[in-house]
Amino acid sequence: MNNNDFFNIKNSRNLTMLVDFYELTMGNGYLDNNVGNSIAYFDMFFRRVPDGGGYCIMAGVEQLIEYLSRLKFTEEDIQYLRSKNCFSDKFLDYLKNFKFTCDVWAIPEGNPVFPGEPLVTVSGPVIQAQFVETMILLTINHQTLIATKSNRICRAADGRPVMEFGSRRAQGYDGAIYGARAAIIGGCSATACTITEQMFKVPATGTMAHSWVQLFATEYEAFAAWAKTYPENCLLLVDTYNVLKSGLPSAIKVFDEILTPMGYKPKGIRIDSGDITYLTKKCRKILDNAGYPDVKITISNSLDEHIITDVLSQGAKVDSFGVGERLITARSEPVFGGVYKLVATKGNDEIIPKIKISENEEKITNPGFKKIYRLFDKTSDKAIADLICLNNEIIDDTKPLEIFDPIHTWKKKKLNNYYAKDLMVKIFDKGKACYKSPTVKEIQSFAKKETEKLWEEVLRFENPHAYYVDLSKQLWNLKQSLLNKYSDLYK
Amino acid sequence: MNNNDFFNIKNSRNLTMLVDFYELTMGNGYLDNNVGNSIAYFDMFFRRVPDGGGYCIMAGVEQLIEYLSRLKFTEEDIQYLRSKNCFSDKFLDYLKNFKFTCDVWAIPEGNPVFPGEPLVTVSGPVIQAQFVETMILLTINHQTLIATKSNRICRAADGRPVMEFGSRRAQGYDGAIYGARAAIIGGCSATACTITEQMFKVPATGTMAHSWVQLFATEYEAFAAWAKTYPENCLLLVDTYNVLKSGLPSAIKVFDEILTPMGYKPKGIRIDSGDITYLTKKCRKILDNAGYPDVKITISNSLDEHIITDVLSQGAKVDSFGVGERLITARSEPVFGGVYKLVATKGNDEIIPKIKISENEEKITNPGFKKIYRLFDKTSDKAIADLICLNNEIIDDTKPLEIFDPIHTWKKKKLNNYYAKDLMVKIFDKGKACYKSPTVKEIQSFAKKETEKLWEEVLRFENPHAYYVDLSKQLWNLKQSLLNKYSDLYK
Repeated sequence: MNNNDFFNIKNSRNLTMLVDFYELTMGNGYLDNNVGNSIAYFDMFFRRVPDGGGYCIMAGVEQLIEYLSRLKFTEEDIQYLRSKNCFSDKFLDYLKNFKFTCDVWAIPEGNPVFPGEPLVTVSGPVIQAQFVETMILLTINHQTLIATKSNRICRAADGRPVMEFGSRRAQGYDGAIYGARAAIIGGCSATACTITEQMFKVPATGTMAHSWVQLFATEYEAFAAWAKTYPENCLLLVDTYNVLKSGLPSAIKVFDEILTPMGYKPKGIRIDSGDITYLTKKCRKILDNAGYPDVKITISNSLDEHIITDVLSQGAKVDSFGVGERLITARSEPVFGGVYKLVATKGNDEIIPKIKISENEEKITNPGFKKIYRLFDKTSDKAIADLICLNNEIIDDTKPLEIFDPIHTWKKKKLNNYYAKDLMVKIFDKGKACYKSPTVKEIQSFAKKETEKLWEEVLRFENPHAYYVDLSKQLWNLKQSLLNKYSDLYK
Repeated sequence: MNNNDFFNIKNSRNLTMLVDFYELTMGNGYLDNNVGNSIAYFDMFFRRVPDGGGYCIMAGVEQLIEYLSRLKFTEEDIQYLRSKNCFSDKFLDYLKNFKFTCDVWAIPEGNPVFPGEPLVTVSGPVIQAQFVETMILLTINHQTLIATKSNRICRAADGRPVMEFGSRRAQGYDGAIYGARAAIIGGCSATACTITEQMFKVPATGTMAHSWVQLFATEYEAFAAWAKTYPENCLLLVDTYNVLKSGLPSAIKVFDEILTPMGYKPKGIRIDSGDITYLTKKCRKILDNAGYPDVKITISNSLDEHIITDVLSQGAKVDSFGVGERLITARSEPVFGGVYKLVATKGNDEIIPKIKISENEEKITNPGFKKIYRLFDKTSDKAIADLICLNNEIIDDTKPLEIFDPIHTWKKKKLNNYYAKDLMVKIFDKGKACYKSPTVKEIQSFAKKETEKLWEEVLRFENPHAYYVDLSKQLWNLKQSLLNKYSDLYK
């Protein structure tokens, strides 16, 4: 497959130099100590779900593939690195002729994912596998964060469309562009970000700002001008001066006097400030009485899953939501804490598992080269648990399987009527991309389908039931034996 | 001046299509209603300082200039817009031949800025001035947010160097790249983001990750290898297994057995987990007793201004800080709520001020084409107040001046011994860039100098004194008269 298939004209940046400086100093050090070509295995994983939720939605694999496909140091990059006076000629030559040769696996986008399991695994010469750390984390952390937040907000909207409106408050240009992509994956029906539609073929929408209304002498004139230009798509922003005393009456007058005589049906109104529940109830009644029961009411103004749940529970009459800053920045918890850890090395054809110990127990890693099986109940098609195994383990799902809690090991469960799905796919084979990303719309549908396979106890916003992420017996034993090796340090 | 002077090879993206879709639908509507070339004035401003702070640090003007210099729709963009079936040929032709002709003013980067005052003002044909809304907001909101957060964190560090380490947790690639730029403006001494050094000539630094330590058979071997490669810059990460029982003893052994015999002095140790205060106190004592009083202690691990203040107040022995996710995402408040509002139009050579009314009083705008004077006390050189005026007002600072609180108007202050500085500079003159940005290091120094001109009551982290942002008598009168026009709506 030609790597260029993955490229997008709007995203043709070479981000090779977006790298933490220590990855370069380590790379130079590996070469200097003749271990640069030692084979290493790294896992990217996270430790907790943001906002206390029950799961995350994997996102960002397509951009990760683009980045890895495009790794290349320019002559200018080499010159700059040389000027730092801390890299050997041997290392600079290595970079000049850099060729990515690693194998990479990832959980496909749209899958629900859980703490502790590898989302991405890289195996290859340590100098390379180390080098890509920053971009793997940055790419997956960002999009998974936003897809997860979007999924929460869209579930709160309970079937009503949610539009992503947040570009202006995003953290940088890519925060807007790829944030909107991830928001669609999480469930948003559209975005206001034009370039995201152009790049990813997801719908961009938008109507008017307050400035449109202010530019004309009166609100009525502003709405009338809009109706004439967009008779088929007449959605009016009614809160520039006062919703009930000016905005809505002017809108209805335009519907009555301009749109209806032209033979068009008005689309809706948008309210961007004030008491949303009160105003939408009032507006609904007035619109219905004026003969416009089909005119939709859209609201915006610093919404998130909690405010949406709240206004709906109060009986607000809302048909769709525009969600901005709190989605595009995941405001309530704007960090997805994915990490990238060495889990094994290779010596004489045998894999040597590695562990990172810590006084903070949650920072202890799962050692070894691994894979993940997701186990589904055959009857209900609900996901029962994820089982992290060593890579050479095979789960034969025609046979019963006993799984157990990795901390409270007495908690055991015997599975009979189940099937096992190998969750990760290979995305690079010896440095060549070997996985073609689905379209964003396809990923969105897939995410919806897979999320529906989670029990409702896991889907809950607050205090969800923890989904089981277990270790295979073999992996559990390996981890214990490595921990025991270090237990003297904690006497 | 050639606009290309501003361009940077690593940042050569044309972001013209990064625009909220409604700016396009409005543009099409303006043309359709023959008002596209009406002259409009827009202000970008914000309403409150994040984290309850007393001021923000302006940032992002250089990138704004790059964006505006590069506005251009490609043939592909036009084709895509045509396919949306909602734009007239006239509008698409306008875009095809798009030429930016606006005047733009901005407060230079590094200045402390305050709620309610225009940070950027655009004047020109409404279709153009409207079009640039998203990118002005996105650019200034993001960098001002991070520069402000960085400034808080660096002040907490109380003179100790702070390094920006957050790329992996940033929201998108530009979140990392320009976030690091803004972090330096706010006061960080260095960043781990290599491409940011390359683009902006600010120092990038970094040493080793836990993976370096894990790759070798023992911690001692890992440190020894590092010391041999980087004898002049030997800073060791000591928390991979256990700081006091393994990391620090191994480090000291390497200092004793390898570095000292080679004739080099060790640089430092870094601790990335565990009880920072306890560990740094212990490590300091052990290092001192081992004859290494000059070895520095760097800490990292989810730091922000509060944790830094806290560990320092407990007597932690820290020489420098590495700050990641909580800086690069401004985690405690990750949204800078700048808005872009129509404030005036031009009709027959006279400026017609516009206002946006709202039931949320803080959303009411300051009307008219304006400028800002910052008033300084001549003796102390401290900033007394900012005075927002109409653009044609001149403050003669050889004469006394009375200023007053715009809400509590009885609160008046008479200034005698003061000087007035016109805060905004013109950055575009009829569409041509006319301002050359200082270097990032120059902006950093400027920010430090200007921040020192604020009274310490404004600098406080919690409950700072509100800096005075007043309206001139003329502007205040204008605003009242416009508000009175709409007061019937709020009867």
